[in-house]
Amino acid sequence: MTHPADLSATEAAARIAAGTLSPAALAEACLERAAARDATVRAFAALEPARVRRAVAGALPGPLHGLPVGVKDVLDTADLPSQYGSPIWSGHRPRSDAAAVALARRAGGVVQGKTVTTEFATRHPGPTTNPHDPARTPGGSSQGSAAGVAAGFFPLAFGTQTAGSVLRPAAYCGITGFKPSFGLIHRAGMKVMSESLDTIGVFGRGAADCALFAGALTGLDLSAAAHAAPRIALCFGPGEAVLSGDSRARIEEVAAACARAGARVTPFALTAPLLAAVEAHPVVMNAETAHALAWERATARALISPVLNERLDWAESLPVSALIEGRAAFAAARAAFRDLMADHDILLTASAPSEAPLGIAATGDPACNALWTALHGPCISLPAGTGAAGMPLGVQLVAPFGADAALLGWARWVERAIGG
Amino acid sequence: MTHPADLSATEAAARIAAGTLSPAALAEACLERAAARDATVRAFAALEPARVRRAVAGALPGPLHGLPVGVKDVLDTADLPSQYGSPIWSGHRPRSDAAAVALARRAGGVVQGKTVTTEFATRHPGPTTNPHDPARTPGGSSQGSAAGVAAGFFPLAFGTQTAGSVLRPAAYCGITGFKPSFGLIHRAGMKVMSESLDTIGVFGRGAADCALFAGALTGLDLSAAAHAAPRIALCFGPGEAVLSGDSRARIEEVAAACARAGARVTPFALTAPLLAAVEAHPVVMNAETAHALAWERATARALISPVLNERLDWAESLPVSALIEGRAAFAAARAAFRDLMADHDILLTASAPSEAPLGIAATGDPACNALWTALHGPCISLPAGTGAAGMPLGVQLVAPFGADAALLGWARWVERAIGG
Repeated sequence: MTHPADLSATEAAARIAAGTLSPAALAEACLERAAARDATVRAFAALEPARVRRAVAGALPGPLHGLPVGVKDVLDTADLPSQYGSPIWSGHRPRSDAAAVALARRAGGVVQGKTVTTEFATRHPGPTTNPHDPARTPGGSSQGSAAGVAAGFFPLAFGTQTAGSVLRPAAYCGITGFKPSFGLIHRAGMKVMSESLDTIGVFGRGAADCALFAGALTGLDLSAAAHAAPRIALCFGPGEAVLSGDSRARIEEVAAACARAGARVTPFALTAPLLAAVEAHPVVMNAETAHALAWERATARALISPVLNERLDWAESLPVSALIEGRAAFAAARAAFRDLMADHDILLTASAPSEAPLGIAATGDPACNALWTALHGPCISLPAGTGAAGMPLGVQLVAPFGADAALLGWARWVERAIGG
Repeated sequence: MTHPADLSATEAAARIAAGTLSPAALAEACLERAAARDATVRAFAALEPARVRRAVAGALPGPLHGLPVGVKDVLDTADLPSQYGSPIWSGHRPRSDAAAVALARRAGGVVQGKTVTTEFATRHPGPTTNPHDPARTPGGSSQGSAAGVAAGFFPLAFGTQTAGSVLRPAAYCGITGFKPSFGLIHRAGMKVMSESLDTIGVFGRGAADCALFAGALTGLDLSAAAHAAPRIALCFGPGEAVLSGDSRARIEEVAAACARAGARVTPFALTAPLLAAVEAHPVVMNAETAHALAWERATARALISPVLNERLDWAESLPVSALIEGRAAFAAARAAFRDLMADHDILLTASAPSEAPLGIAATGDPACNALWTALHGPCISLPAGTGAAGMPLGVQLVAPFGADAALLGWARWVERAIGG
């Protein structure tokens, strides 16, 4: 029998509903796992077992009843520090929960702890290691959340994505990461950087877990698996030049498995409006982040990492027209993608260039993710076996804006087709 | 000679640059005015004269050097309480400034104080009265900011708009209020309610003041007045049924004055996609606000006004599909408006149904504003004389998304055409 800390959220919820697992036993199993492994994984930015036990005792009824949730430390929590991965915010204790956290609690979820984020969810990493190999990065920026789900510290976790901060760590850690359509989960109480891009997402152990969690937060019914086979657009993506051989091969194998299961697979080429959005992404992201951090830059610049100051200095050196044109390029790309997808259900592409790279001083390359984030539609990374180094690989599915329920349904179809 | 507290921001800036007015003298003049009048106007949510004097002494060089700025109390300030118009946030002192506030200080502005907002920038009013008649509302939700500019407490102020929270109080108080294109001013550190609608805007004494302030915040050059005459779409708007006779007549008079000055004026009818956005506005606004306030509703429901709880209960009773369809209606209306405006430069409509109503228990009707906010383009309210009761009237100019510089240029043209 699976150890409670390794259950999927859907299975844990079913056992709790059936009375064969108590929320307290589940929380203790997760706490024990953290006690055993977090000295190495370092997923938690804040963990207070006594507070967890109180939260379990007060857990509300609802679709997440008794399920432990890791909360990325760019989302405020009223009962735990919220430090945004920055020494500028050391010891900060907000008065309130972020809206997403309050909604998770209202649905019965138990905040297990705060999870490590890179500095302000940008590039400068925290101390988290990959649960499959402590010499490797778990990815970022949602590094503690992805590593914690993989390590059995909680079955569900919050992430946020501006470029590839949910999808890439999900792939590196061998779990499932779902970035919904832009705006689906309210960002009140999040430390927002890029207003045009930042999207709250979720991690779980399978597409059904992500559907359970995102459905509980939004009220959407995301639970239906697709039964017919999808029309798949196969695209090696803007990161094609940096794809490892095993990553590329895995996408082709997944496409072939889907075709065998009945899917129609068609090559999909990136057109000029999509490539323009790729170019615009760093401009919009960094220019908006420079505004978001105006207070930090004015009052505590020396406490910001050199890499981030450098990027924001670059963004501030651009004319403001570059930001406005970048946003316009995004809008044009969204319209183009909607049209290009008219005859496809989902797009299959890479979640990350390769297995998790060695070292934790960098979190890997978001080249496979930034475009799809800018397009505002839902994206999901599914585990897809291991690569040459024995580390997890993932594949990404993308759908047009608003097709969240459909994408999650197709993801469950693809999971079955590839034996996930 | 105009009293320093009554100078426009552009004139005050010119005098400061010329050395004929010191920032300290200007701040003192504004503090004296507040000492004389704020017991009646009640525009300030927080005012600490000693802090103002320190801020003046440390004011940075820049386009706003030494200009006093009122900050609506939904924007965080590191050195003043930030209470969002709600007893739930009584005494709250954030660690940081909102991005917009930090950018104003970086441009040389002096935070004069926090200004009264309705509860969370929704409907339940604060104590502010109209500077032209204390028996009347100044409008809302940005009530302290609009009243303070009108009363001489500061020449510039921040507002925010979800339905009509900048434009309407500007009209009621006889000043100029500008809501830029959605997203132009970053909302980090704002207590956001509706992610799809909330927009940070500015108040001043004339379009040039708004251009100076918004330009300093964004880096855009908004300073050019238009020289050629505009093509004006004349629209009585979704609030036509509630327009007072003098409001309607004033719009017609302004249109006639513009036509005499060379403008082409054409009637503009609201089409089905625009009317659908009017219907969708309360759904999107309240459903998103219900999510934004999830923590407050879960932990302090009794401290939320009955009117707000009632609206949010209503929003939560709707299927989530209503929210998603409402956002889709907005997107369709934006596309339709862009096409409808292809042969017009600006749209002329009402800022508010009438002069400021009697009483301060309500802030007036946003029927003239909500559609244009949902369309995401820039809007400005210009003073346009007085109405039957001797209170200020305003007219609203609207332009398509992104046409901020053009709108402000046309606004200065219209000001001249109507003798403003």
